[in-house]
Amino acid sequence: MQTIEKLDALRDSPADVAAPVSSRMHSTVARAIVDRYHNGSEIRKMFDDGVRLKTIHGPDNVADLSIGNPPFPPPAAFTRALQQFASARGRHSYMQNAGFLDVREAVARSLNERGFFNAIEGQHIVMTTGAAGAINVVLKTILEPGDEVIVPRPFFSEYRYYIDNHGGRMVLADTGPAFDLDVAAILEKVTASTRAVIVNSPCNPTGRVYPETTLQALADNLKRLSDQRGSPIFVISDEPYRELLFDNARFTSIASLYCNSFMCYSWSKAFSIAGERIGYIAVNPTLRTDDWPTLIGSLAMCNRFLGFVNAPAFMQRVIGAALNAPPETDHYARRRTLLCQALDEGGYRYARPEGTFYIFPETPGTEDDFIRRAREELLLVVPGRAFGAEGWFRLSFAATDRAVELACERLVRLSR
Amino acid sequence: MQTIEKLDALRDSPADVAAPVSSRMHSTVARAIVDRYHNGSEIRKMFDDGVRLKTIHGPDNVADLSIGNPPFPPPAAFTRALQQFASARGRHSYMQNAGFLDVREAVARSLNERGFFNAIEGQHIVMTTGAAGAINVVLKTILEPGDEVIVPRPFFSEYRYYIDNHGGRMVLADTGPAFDLDVAAILEKVTASTRAVIVNSPCNPTGRVYPETTLQALADNLKRLSDQRGSPIFVISDEPYRELLFDNARFTSIASLYCNSFMCYSWSKAFSIAGERIGYIAVNPTLRTDDWPTLIGSLAMCNRFLGFVNAPAFMQRVIGAALNAPPETDHYARRRTLLCQALDEGGYRYARPEGTFYIFPETPGTEDDFIRRAREELLLVVPGRAFGAEGWFRLSFAATDRAVELACERLVRLSR
Repeated sequence: MQTIEKLDALRDSPADVAAPVSSRMHSTVARAIVDRYHNGSEIRKMFDDGVRLKTIHGPDNVADLSIGNPPFPPPAAFTRALQQFASARGRHSYMQNAGFLDVREAVARSLNERGFFNAIEGQHIVMTTGAAGAINVVLKTILEPGDEVIVPRPFFSEYRYYIDNHGGRMVLADTGPAFDLDVAAILEKVTASTRAVIVNSPCNPTGRVYPETTLQALADNLKRLSDQRGSPIFVISDEPYRELLFDNARFTSIASLYCNSFMCYSWSKAFSIAGERIGYIAVNPTLRTDDWPTLIGSLAMCNRFLGFVNAPAFMQRVIGAALNAPPETDHYARRRTLLCQALDEGGYRYARPEGTFYIFPETPGTEDDFIRRAREELLLVVPGRAFGAEGWFRLSFAATDRAVELACERLVRLSR
Repeated sequence: MQTIEKLDALRDSPADVAAPVSSRMHSTVARAIVDRYHNGSEIRKMFDDGVRLKTIHGPDNVADLSIGNPPFPPPAAFTRALQQFASARGRHSYMQNAGFLDVREAVARSLNERGFFNAIEGQHIVMTTGAAGAINVVLKTILEPGDEVIVPRPFFSEYRYYIDNHGGRMVLADTGPAFDLDVAAILEKVTASTRAVIVNSPCNPTGRVYPETTLQALADNLKRLSDQRGSPIFVISDEPYRELLFDNARFTSIASLYCNSFMCYSWSKAFSIAGERIGYIAVNPTLRTDDWPTLIGSLAMCNRFLGFVNAPAFMQRVIGAALNAPPETDHYARRRTLLCQALDEGGYRYARPEGTFYIFPETPGTEDDFIRRAREELLLVVPGRAFGAEGWFRLSFAATDRAVELACERLVRLSR
């Protein structure tokens, strides 16, 4: 039989097969991934540490303020919609890769009603697997190999990997005092290879909410530069925290101000449903393109290519019915007040967060030393270097009452 | 104010910013994406065509057998679990990126009970956003830039994009008569750069279910070659159709036979829940690695890096409770019989499918001509070139009774 003969011939190992592959320290996992696994993720290390410490000392004795994972129930309207659609025996099939049109239209209506846009329509919306999915889909759609993406520092550490996934290069721009957005610092980083700027307001990890005047200045300048060079510099506005605001802080989306922008949203934080992976891309309807169907079609196609295919069907329906439910921010306001009091008492240097559920104080002493001492006190926080800002640390107050209470005591003690 | 001065300085456009970016035909969407959008996806074109034709001629007059999207209700056990968890007011937060441990353990138990593995455990499972998510996570985890992935042709067209997402190179291997897996043809394509082979049984688009002897021969040879060169050639076993079998066909997973394998599964097809995006990676527990935690941790990390973060939480819980529900394959058996009768009557050349819900007949005349004539008859099918096999076409019988009935008449007419 011919096949067996061929197999026998191959058994005499052709040289190119027998040659050892270039040395792979870990022959199973790709080198870049192993390196990142072992060195890259401070947040993951904290998570693993947290699990270990909770096992040893009991979960009630560890103040885990490391992870941004709301432990609160979702709004009642969400739960009602969940029950309603579970009983409705709806279909769970594929829909268009951009999502259910009625849900996309509901999102568009809600964005118009809230004043983000004047005339956005369902066709400008692509439903996604959370904001992480949204950002990856946008980057896949717009990035040429080697394109640069400017990211203000400190930054959400995953941006680095998202940009890298699609062959882009992350270029960091410093922020100003108290981590205010520094428009000039961003513009200084613009080159012919700049394809996009990521704006994350309210900002993880700093809690800053960038004022409209600053965002307008950035928008005006990017518009001018885009016009000058004849190709757009996009803004990716990552805004999952936009409903989590304090002290009457006012949120402005740069996606409302700047035509070449992609708004990336997720209900993870506002609705405490981070595990459900539901969000969207809203493309500014005044974006200048000679071919809208290709743009939206390409976003939807990239949703498919990346393996998301479409945002989870059932959760799309649920969110479509619940998307105007007001998020409950009371947990956060109270926790923020307690933690700020403790930080004040300890004499920490920090900017009072205007939004998110994070505070980003300066470490007393070196970062390594502080993180080590905090761990000894069973206080888990994320070191600033995870966000490109050594000498600071992030506290997440998406945490239980008990964890916040313990953290307050320990923060005061650690400041001495 | 310093910031304004800096802005003014920048307004006098530095040369590198003013220089025109290399000509971008579509300045919004990356070139490679635009090209794929306009040329790449035959299936998408069929989908768009289908929408248009249904609008013109009425949905009841178009026989759309193009898409593999089960239109049937999910098993009752799934719907019951959905209702139960909707009422349970569970948490919707992030869990570990690999998924809920109890769900991973339920999957592992089920795999042992069904004889796929002897001793697989929850720690060998990573819950994913469908099989598309699973394959992307595996490829991200294992591929070095330029690594080759061997894919038997005809092939599910998305593999090309998945491999490309992670810097790999797809290498096609021909199949034998009637699209049987040709082990020798695969082995001939092995080079020092080969990192993985994708095996898709039951196969989309051909409906072949590869026999155990063939898979064992492939496994034995890949093991030998892996040992010879001192680094594994992985198998990615993509098996979302494994429960959709006909005429007592017997499914064997190569992931059961070969140590260096990743089983990628989705409930999309068996449960008619393609839109929900829920599946898993099961790593063969005898995979040779000196560092299991790094391997599983890297898969989970790539799940995060790619923006999936974790498989949708609610659907994980639902599937964890319903995963032993028997899929209903009766719709498919009946439709397959009807279509095969029509193909026989029309004298088409084709291999009777042993699994999936696809048939892959030869086109009478040229592919282009047949597809054009079929479209005129309002029969939508996918041209073979979408699967790397020109001169053939794919019929999906995941379709309504009416569509199958119309298709049967039209197939007979088109054969003349």
